[in-house]
Amino acid sequence: MHTNSDWFYSDCPKIDEQWLDQARRHQNSLTKPPGSLGKLEALAINFCGWQSTLKPTCDQVQITVFAGDHGIAQQGVSAFPQAVTAQMVLNFLAGGAAISVLAKQLKAQFNVVNCGVAEALSDAPGLVNDPIALGTQDFSLRPAMTHEQCLAAMALGAAQVHDSQLFIGGEMGIGNTSAASAIFSVLLNQSAMATVGPGTGLQKDGISQKQRLIEQSIELHKSDIHNALDALRCLGGFEIAALVGAYIRSAQRGIPVLVDGFITTAAALVAVKLNPSVRHWLLFSHQSAEPAHRAALESMSARALLALDMRLGEGSGAAMAVPIIQSALRLHNDMATFQQAGVSQ
Amino acid sequence: MHTNSDWFYSDCPKIDEQWLDQARRHQNSLTKPPGSLGKLEALAINFCGWQSTLKPTCDQVQITVFAGDHGIAQQGVSAFPQAVTAQMVLNFLAGGAAISVLAKQLKAQFNVVNCGVAEALSDAPGLVNDPIALGTQDFSLRPAMTHEQCLAAMALGAAQVHDSQLFIGGEMGIGNTSAASAIFSVLLNQSAMATVGPGTGLQKDGISQKQRLIEQSIELHKSDIHNALDALRCLGGFEIAALVGAYIRSAQRGIPVLVDGFITTAAALVAVKLNPSVRHWLLFSHQSAEPAHRAALESMSARALLALDMRLGEGSGAAMAVPIIQSALRLHNDMATFQQAGVSQ
Repeated sequence: MHTNSDWFYSDCPKIDEQWLDQARRHQNSLTKPPGSLGKLEALAINFCGWQSTLKPTCDQVQITVFAGDHGIAQQGVSAFPQAVTAQMVLNFLAGGAAISVLAKQLKAQFNVVNCGVAEALSDAPGLVNDPIALGTQDFSLRPAMTHEQCLAAMALGAAQVHDSQLFIGGEMGIGNTSAASAIFSVLLNQSAMATVGPGTGLQKDGISQKQRLIEQSIELHKSDIHNALDALRCLGGFEIAALVGAYIRSAQRGIPVLVDGFITTAAALVAVKLNPSVRHWLLFSHQSAEPAHRAALESMSARALLALDMRLGEGSGAAMAVPIIQSALRLHNDMATFQQAGVSQ
Repeated sequence: MHTNSDWFYSDCPKIDEQWLDQARRHQNSLTKPPGSLGKLEALAINFCGWQSTLKPTCDQVQITVFAGDHGIAQQGVSAFPQAVTAQMVLNFLAGGAAISVLAKQLKAQFNVVNCGVAEALSDAPGLVNDPIALGTQDFSLRPAMTHEQCLAAMALGAAQVHDSQLFIGGEMGIGNTSAASAIFSVLLNQSAMATVGPGTGLQKDGISQKQRLIEQSIELHKSDIHNALDALRCLGGFEIAALVGAYIRSAQRGIPVLVDGFITTAAALVAVKLNPSVRHWLLFSHQSAEPAHRAALESMSARALLALDMRLGEGSGAAMAVPIIQSALRLHNDMATFQQAGVSQ
């Protein structure tokens, strides 16, 4: 196991302000009222900065789904049984899951990483089968991971980042909205009342029970949590830790990250707390209906591109935002300027 | 001139509830928590109903931009000179405008209709050059159109609807946010204070002036406006009337309409007021920042798919939403069911 922690504090590349300035000037020369393409302008300008070019593209997309199981699932926090995590991994690989369909449509590089599903999985094409353990510990009783396991999961995630123009991490793990809510509670200093929502399908009674459970769990670990890494270790999951590692490594390699939804934003928040220079390489794709998501985005001065009432995870919200980015870049590259078109400014 | 008005009251086809029910059942059988694809599920279900199929597609898209000038522009309501309308028509045809770039990316049928630009335009490939007049009258002084002109513009719009799986109408016309705001004021019974915003670039003083002007104009025409057609005739524009006609005809032909933003929603509202059966064939793509837009959507029980801070018109917001629809249908068609994938439900 690779359990060195130094790598994740290394600075990410700085974005060249000159390219941003040039891109802004180019946007203002295009045949439209200045600012009238809204968020599309900011997207194009960011990609110019990231790629140090005035003609950015986003055709090579990597989508990697990280799967892991959660000890907390035995407390009945999910509407689905734990076996679904492994079943869905097979569904991802077979092409039947939402993210598989979207990845194919986007012609993205697509694979799945077994970070620690509760049952042993057979090797298969498209599967990185390198589990840290057969699920985490139940964080309502003890820390979810050891320090070594947490670092190993982060390193596993980092090792998955390949060359592309955009990195999307998805996640699958029954119980992982509980882990994400607990992380948000600690890092945003909010009670579980504020951070726990319905997940993928809990009713009102289930939500209250989940809130109490997470409140008690945080109380249990409070004295051991001194930083974001402790929060990740005590309350997170192997797939969340892998996402933290992947986001940091992607940003360090100068590959922008498109964060998906609720769970992945918990990973993004941990990544930014550990290494603030990661923030400038993150885009946020989908506004989750889960209550803590907005607060988490605000804490990073971020706004999501889409709000389609999705609550699936897997990277599906991020995949939906890729065509928005591609169109934003196409507009930036292919629109005429006022001068070229002879339009009065 | 075709100035018969009977055609636009004819009922649109009813949507077969059985297909909607079957589509809902299929959505609930797919490997995801029920409802977790949010708005994407409703989109897919609607297309199943519209196309009477369980395997809907949306690959053939028509995008037609309707251009016309507005007498009200002489009152200084826009940040841009009136000449820009004609200049932008040429830019649409040359491929340099935002909607041209997006239409090409979508491989959509694309053309432009001169409904009444203030200067005569030369014939050109891709241009339907059939102006009703060289711009409307200044509605702060007199009705924007005669009854015959209004009906002719609607018929011109209706004639543009060709076979496709989705109809998108765009618009270009300096001053047409004023016309749309005035229509919203009358049809939603709101003051111009509530319906007039910055358009494509007015500052605060300009907005107050525009509000007063529109308040006075509505006062001028109040006694002549008895229905939505009167509002369209007195306050609208040739391109807005053409959109009304196109939306009604598209719905009557059973082709769903993807409404763009602020101006096109004014046309949609007129269409629905004239013929309520149109409503079931309308989708709304982009939430405008203009204040009256939300009220107009609410009055039709509609929610927009996207909110990207765009304020360009041309059909650009609708074009941005097409990939969302295409992905929603792909998910509906290609995802595995719980049974197929062996996933616990």
